[in-house]
Order: sequence, then C-alpha cells, then structure tokens
Amino acid sequence: MAAALALARDAAAAGEVPVGAVVTAADGRVLAGAHNQTRSLPDPTAHAEILALREAAKVLGNERLIGCTLWVTLEPCPMCAAAISEARLARLVYGATDPKGGGVEHGPRIFAHSRHAPELVSGVGETESAALLKAFFTDRR
Amino acid sequence: MAAALALARDAAAAGEVPVGAVVTAADGRVLAGAHNQTRSLPDPTAHAEILALREAAKVLGNERLIGCTLWVTLEPCPMCAAAISEARLARLVYGATDPKGGGVEHGPRIFAHSRHAPELVSGVGETESAALLKAFFTDRR
Repeated sequence: MAAALALARDAAAAGEVPVGAVVTAADGRVLAGAHNQTRSLPDPTAHAEILALREAAKVLGNERLIGCTLWVTLEPCPMCAAAISEARLARLVYGATDPKGGGVEHGPRIFAHSRHAPELVSGVGETESAALLKAFFTDRR
Repeated sequence: MAAALALARDAAAAGEVPVGAVVTAADGRVLAGAHNQTRSLPDPTAHAEILALREAAKVLGNERLIGCTLWVTLEPCPMCAAAISEARLARLVYGATDPKGGGVEHGPRIFAHSRHAPELVSGVGETESAALLKAFFTDRR
C-alpha cells in the first residue's frame, strides 16, 4: 500500500485526483502500478485501478489476473469494482472509503451482484489516503 | 447501429465475443468504433464500449463526452455502464438485453445509483445482435 500511496502523491503533483493502485501476483511480486490520469490522457476510464489492471494483464499475457491482489488507496468506483470482477482478481485491498463515489460498500455494491467477487480488506493506509484527497480538493475550491 | 453490428461481426471473425460499439457526437458524426478485444490485447477492460469511449475522448481531447451517444449491440455490463456514466454520455442505445451479464436492466442496475445517467433506448438491432451472440457461443460449445 505504501507504493500505491506514493503513486497517489504523484497524481496530486500532476493535477490528477490522488488515487494510486498497484497489482501484485500471488507470490507478492509487483506486476503494475498507476495513478489516475483521466485528464492528462484524456480518458474517462483512466482511473488508477483500470490502468494498473491493464498493465498487469499485459505483463502476464492474460486478461485474467488469477491469484492477483489489487491495492488501491480509495474504495473503487462502480466501474473499477466491476473491472476487478471481470479480471478475476483474488483480493482487493483498499484504503479510505468513498461514500459518494464508491461502488463496493456504497452505491450499486458491485460485488453483491457479481459472480466473481474478490476477498476484501479495507482501511489499509486509510488515514494517509483520506488526507491526500482532502488536501487536493481543499486546494481546488 | 448498423456500424456497431458490422464491428460485432468483425469481433466474431477474430474469435472475440461479438459485441460492437460506436460513439457519435451530438451532430451525428461518428467519433469512434470498436469491438471486444479482451483476448487479443489481452486486457480485461477491453470491451467494445470501453475501447470506443477511450477513442472518442482522444478524438475530442476531453474525458467528458458531452452530448454524445453510445450505440452498442448488447446491454452494457456493470463496468461499461459505469464508464458511460463517468464519461457523461447523453444517450445510450443498445440492442439485445443481457440477463446474465448486463448492468443496466439487470444485476446492479448502475444508472439507478449514478448521478449521471444517460437517456436510454433499447432493442435497436436486437434480433441480429442476439443471433450473432447465439451463433458464436453455439460454435464454442
């Protein structure tokens, strides 16, 4: 999660919403990492999670990330949660919750409806993640 | 929708699930088109809709596809429906419904939870879309 938080800080420095994500293989090896780039690309789907999943699939040469874990600093939105299900990840670890935009504990609660739900761990790195987001949006207002 | 169906036929010929998608601007101009490429890329997020949205954002130079319409041969899955909401599309037109994998009329019913829901039109080109999918999955069994 430290690597995901570092990526979130990079996002803020680049003027993007500070969310970072890392994919690790079953053996703990880091396969991919990314931060939000919706503005710079521009690409409405370029959330940290989607970019990291795409990179990891390329590294593995397989669109199914069997046994892998996604570490992300914020509760994934519905798009990203559903992508995690599509990619067949084994585990999702996230930091802060997102009552407005989240799709795991909030909104459509994607995994309650999906055939492929990962094991869930939340609250990891929550304080630092929430502080980064708060500082970013305070600066913007 | 004829262009989206042609893309779906291309997908089947390439061994990909036959779904095609096209994005048009408010004035009717075609901005982007794509078919599923999850296996060939490989990329778990490479559904027709996601690829078409990404291409359209690149063409417009903006991650928000204000006023645009997405035409897709099958009811979008939860990931794609949520991406349509992220991209702020004005309208979604789709062909066949997808009781197993759909995320608009089925499963998490994404737009019931989202702040940005497009105008919806369904059943356009439904018969040909469903026939393409049925033939593809019959061949695979």
